[in-house]
Amino acid sequence: MVKVGIIGATGYAGAELVRLLINHKDVEIKWYGSRSYIEKPYAEVYQNLFQIVEDKCLDDNMEELAKQVDVIFTATPQGFCASMVTEDMLQQTKIIDLSADFRIKDVTTYEKWYNIEHKSPQFIDEAVYGLCEINRDQVKEARLVANPGCYTTCSILSIYPLCKEGLIDTSTIIIDAKSGTSGAGRGAKVDNLFCEVNESMKAYGVTTHRHTPEIEEQLGYAAGEKILLNFTPHLVPMNRGILVTAYATLKKDVTYEEVKAVYDKHYEKEKFVRVLDKDVCPQTRWVKGSNYVDVNFKIDERTNRIVMMGALDNLVKGAAGQAVQNMNLMFGFEESEGLESVPMFP
Amino acid sequence: MVKVGIIGATGYAGAELVRLLINHKDVEIKWYGSRSYIEKPYAEVYQNLFQIVEDKCLDDNMEELAKQVDVIFTATPQGFCASMVTEDMLQQTKIIDLSADFRIKDVTTYEKWYNIEHKSPQFIDEAVYGLCEINRDQVKEARLVANPGCYTTCSILSIYPLCKEGLIDTSTIIIDAKSGTSGAGRGAKVDNLFCEVNESMKAYGVTTHRHTPEIEEQLGYAAGEKILLNFTPHLVPMNRGILVTAYATLKKDVTYEEVKAVYDKHYEKEKFVRVLDKDVCPQTRWVKGSNYVDVNFKIDERTNRIVMMGALDNLVKGAAGQAVQNMNLMFGFEESEGLESVPMFP
Amino acid sequence: MVKVGIIGATGYAGAELVRLLINHKDVEIKWYGSRSYIEKPYAEVYQNLFQIVEDKCLDDNMEELAKQVDVIFTATPQGFCASMVTEDMLQQTKIIDLSADFRIKDVTTYEKWYNIEHKSPQFIDEAVYGLCEINRDQVKEARLVANPGCYTTCSILSIYPLCKEGLIDTSTIIIDAKSGTSGAGRGAKVDNLFCEVNESMKAYGVTTHRHTPEIEEQLGYAAGEKILLNFTPHLVPMNRGILVTAYATLKKDVTYEEVKAVYDKHYEKEKFVRVLDKDVCPQTRWVKGSNYVDVNFKIDERTNRIVMMGALDNLVKGAAGQAVQNMNLMFGFEESEGLESVPMFP
Amino acid sequence: MVKVGIIGATGYAGAELVRLLINHKDVEIKWYGSRSYIEKPYAEVYQNLFQIVEDKCLDDNMEELAKQVDVIFTATPQGFCASMVTEDMLQQTKIIDLSADFRIKDVTTYEKWYNIEHKSPQFIDEAVYGLCEINRDQVKEARLVANPGCYTTCSILSIYPLCKEGLIDTSTIIIDAKSGTSGAGRGAKVDNLFCEVNESMKAYGVTTHRHTPEIEEQLGYAAGEKILLNFTPHLVPMNRGILVTAYATLKKDVTYEEVKAVYDKHYEKEKFVRVLDKDVCPQTRWVKGSNYVDVNFKIDERTNRIVMMGALDNLVKGAAGQAVQNMNLMFGFEESEGLESVPMFP
Repeated sequence: MVKVGIIGATGYAGAELVRLLINHKDVEIKWYGSRSYIEKPYAEVYQNLFQIVEDKCLDDNMEELAKQVDVIFTATPQGFCASMVTEDMLQQTKIIDLSADFRIKDVTTYEKWYNIEHKSPQFIDEAVYGLCEINRDQVKEARLVANPGCYTTCSILSIYPLCKEGLIDTSTIIIDAKSGTSGAGRGAKVDNLFCEVNESMKAYGVTTHRHTPEIEEQLGYAAGEKILLNFTPHLVPMNRGILVTAYATLKKDVTYEEVKAVYDKHYEKEKFVRVLDKDVCPQTRWVKGSNYVDVNFKIDERTNRIVMMGALDNLVKGAAGQAVQNMNLMFGFEESEGLESVPMFP
Repeated sequence: MVKVGIIGATGYAGAELVRLLINHKDVEIKWYGSRSYIEKPYAEVYQNLFQIVEDKCLDDNMEELAKQVDVIFTATPQGFCASMVTEDMLQQTKIIDLSADFRIKDVTTYEKWYNIEHKSPQFIDEAVYGLCEINRDQVKEARLVANPGCYTTCSILSIYPLCKEGLIDTSTIIIDAKSGTSGAGRGAKVDNLFCEVNESMKAYGVTTHRHTPEIEEQLGYAAGEKILLNFTPHLVPMNRGILVTAYATLKKDVTYEEVKAVYDKHYEKEKFVRVLDKDVCPQTRWVKGSNYVDVNFKIDERTNRIVMMGALDNLVKGAAGQAVQNMNLMFGFEESEGLESVPMFP
Repeated sequence: MVKVGIIGATGYAGAELVRLLINHKDVEIKWYGSRSYIEKPYAEVYQNLFQIVEDKCLDDNMEELAKQVDVIFTATPQGFCASMVTEDMLQQTKIIDLSADFRIKDVTTYEKWYNIEHKSPQFIDEAVYGLCEINRDQVKEARLVANPGCYTTCSILSIYPLCKEGLIDTSTIIIDAKSGTSGAGRGAKVDNLFCEVNESMKAYGVTTHRHTPEIEEQLGYAAGEKILLNFTPHLVPMNRGILVTAYATLKKDVTYEEVKAVYDKHYEKEKFVRVLDKDVCPQTRWVKGSNYVDVNFKIDERTNRIVMMGALDNLVKGAAGQAVQNMNLMFGFEESEGLESVPMFP
Repeated sequence: MVKVGIIGATGYAGAELVRLLINHKDVEIKWYGSRSYIEKPYAEVYQNLFQIVEDKCLDDNMEELAKQVDVIFTATPQGFCASMVTEDMLQQTKIIDLSADFRIKDVTTYEKWYNIEHKSPQFIDEAVYGLCEINRDQVKEARLVANPGCYTTCSILSIYPLCKEGLIDTSTIIIDAKSGTSGAGRGAKVDNLFCEVNESMKAYGVTTHRHTPEIEEQLGYAAGEKILLNFTPHLVPMNRGILVTAYATLKKDVTYEEVKAVYDKHYEKEKFVRVLDKDVCPQTRWVKGSNYVDVNFKIDERTNRIVMMGALDNLVKGAAGQAVQNMNLMFGFEESEGLESVPMFP
């Protein structure tokens, strides 16, 4: 049994890691780290785990933790992981960081968008961007994985094949994304109260959201050119789910079949990316609770644009599920182990 | 007291007309038309009106109705109003049509997008597109008003000043719109059941939604050129509200203050259009139940685009409220009579 | 114009007072008191009021306020009003207290259930319990009104006629109540976050909720005997609305018609209490945004019990609307002034 | 591999059976019966199963099906199973009926409450009431299991220990139950549209709901006496979950510890029934997607009553999960096989 430690186990992403890892046959959670709830039984914070998890919450002493476990998940605020990780730790344990600390290769870009000094830039090069479908081979060898953001995963997987194959003018990409409220975290803020979110919708972080440079960087690798794009996130009154609607101008006339072939080329063998049938739009209800991403597209001949769409569960494929998928790759487990649950509907 | 008749009084838009007109001091509802509920007390269909409305539902005999009332609202499926209206009727009564029948000036465009033959094209020219803030003077003189669509109202009012003043490249306009579920109507369909809509989000009508040509036509008038654009509607798990996020490339370098001045030029004196303060994004919760449209914008210097945003209540400013506003103009009432309610939150 | 001051204007009940009073033709709000937002424009806290309210939030200096206005609404935590009110103030202004401070006549009971010392017991006797339908005449003469609780109003109005007419065994009363989340207030607590409340339901305060003695006292007056009962509140994933389902054993065989006559005797002339038609169950959707209470009952011959049901909007008839109704009575306005809005659906 | 057939596979309970059985290691679904969708790919009706289930929907020919599979689940309207089942079938296959056809032992009671003639009363005696925690041994031997109702399971498990041990006066039992909307089924009805259910709550079937006699019968067996009780269901704006709040008068003075011991006596060894810690109220969010029932109680010394509470997921322990649990018992599998998923939150 692989021994696992989680730092930030009482946030929504951390709790989702717990949910998934409990049903994973090859691992054992040894450390429920939560600075806010030290000494409190984990199942009092998340009562769904009553009589399932007996452990108490521990602190976030990563140095000690590194000695005890084979892999550490950090589901922590920006800057935490970068401020803690050392070469010593990485020789003792693997790290899968769910924060943004090691996602962006250009440290200046990171520091500008996150407005924070990077405390361990020396590990940025080594860190593997853990989008399994794209970087599978590197993940397998990694000591340190930067688990992608939720919006990012959905955006990239929706657009990637067309960037890679050069079908779209990358200077025209616009991503309009919508997220359930668990993406806003479990902090006690007036703006996230039930009565403030329910029966409403809003854009936020317009032109300034931090997932923008992450998407630009990864799509840039695919396209082989620098990309600047618009990314607008929105808050939706639902618990889980991200829906991406992306737009770009086609570089040449293409048929539905040609574009479909491009998506299939990249995703046909991917268990967790489902290219839907013609004219079927992705919906978050069909992926809830699962690691699937549903993608599809629609060509608009009137405007010569293509509309690319994707849907995933922000806590699973957008966070904890992808982290588990990365762990499976890193430890040589079946890639889908612990992630076989069928999407739950309704 | 002006006498009012409503055809289609038991749909959501019709019921909203009833709600607003009951609190309107200058009118009296004489006819609750509803083909599906003939002879049934209206307050049994909408029990919020128990002990408030005593009338029974009547049929949709517009000819008879025209003789009895001063104005008819048709909140009916596409094609109904066009198939009924006659010169005789228009000499007896005014008509405010909440369907799309008279919104689009080019009958071929109408017939292509709606896939229906137009039964009275002779009235299309006369019909006034009832977007009060833009066509106020014509509405005052109109016999037949084409009340704008919900998505359309929100989209046009968000973008109009920049088209009118030539600040944006109209070939780059992309509109990503999100709507509450009352926009889908009160028909009994599996797709609109609580468990299907709740906890989910989806795009629909991608590249083919019928509000597209209506937006293109009206923005085209403003810009003085033919416009083709992308419009993508989405279904959101909330009852009311439309949120529009629109994108376009700027034609030249502009500052926040310059764009703000353009919005203010058109909307400063408009009671129902509120240009929000800098960096405040429109949210549907702040306009619920009211006739307000909140708009704002954000310039993205990185991509040279502008993001335009708008929020309204699809049943009020997006349907019944705007229809009442049109009626007020047509009968010389105070424009805001019956529409003074403060948005209801939460 | 009657001058109004509100202490606690930025809670949900305070904001609802603002919403209702803005549309009230005889009053003018002079003071938006909010300790948390002093100097902040009120319309920045509640953006639905952008361009409608220009005032800034003020402090909670009731002594000063009493000199400036004709009536003060205190929508404040328990203990505040009792700790501030003086004979001087009451000679200068009227007070409508939306907290529980003056609802319970027995100060020991108050101090026990609220676990707080009552700072001005000398005013308890004078204070009128502002359930307008029952204490209308006393309210008209009052200087100090104790505005009833939300659960309380719904519970009492559902059961009152049967207690008053002696039809039920008061030792058997059980009240199972359900409330929307705005009843929990606007404080930033994890338990009230969207993701915690949405898609869930729970009982809370079982056997210990503070509205219990208030209901017992008032129903006791009606029945002419001391009453002990069970009251269980529940949290429901919706913004507004209280639904009460109450049970009691009938003292004798009665027909539907006999019980209906008893309800009608008390409520037939009441504008805001609607006794529904036979077999129609109250639903919160039909009273949302309005001052109505819908009530009905069902006799169970198998168990010799009667099920009594009521629905209201907790922020209107359950708080701010009833406070306005009280104000109207106190100042000789039309009782329904400012409360004429039709319930908003959907 | 045990071969499974499902009749009624496209209702919500049927779809939940599919979800659970796909992750069950010992079974294989051979027949997706759905009269409404014959020949349509199952994954087009439930797109969460895209690329997971390749089968098409088949008809409801139980005779043919009985020859092909080891167990049939009927998730069908009342009367269907009773009209189809024969001795021949029962010699070929086992049947787990999710409808009410074989739940009630007294056929007159069944016919009265369901207003339907029972077509195969000869199997009523043989049928085992499949509440696993209570009838485990009989289920193991059964050919025909009557899977309990959703409200029923939650009500009985919340109250059972106190009936069994004689602690409560069974003539005083009142059950106030609340259910998510998936309990209303997937039929296209106006009353179940999103905008009708959302932001509202109502009681329904007051004094007449069909789960009443089922609860009375089963609790009657536990108490050893005939029971009449009040049961009131309510509709809640959430997808899944049932919450029961039940009331009864205590027969004698008991302490918390004594009652706790009674619950523990019956449930301590039950994996799926969790007796919560003192003062912790069951909440549906903590059991969502799982087969757990959370129960607890609170003694009210003032009224000498006890409040009993329970929460479960109506589609899992209230329907499909319990059916799988029954199947596991009938085939000698691990009782929790396929039901090990941790509750999903949020």
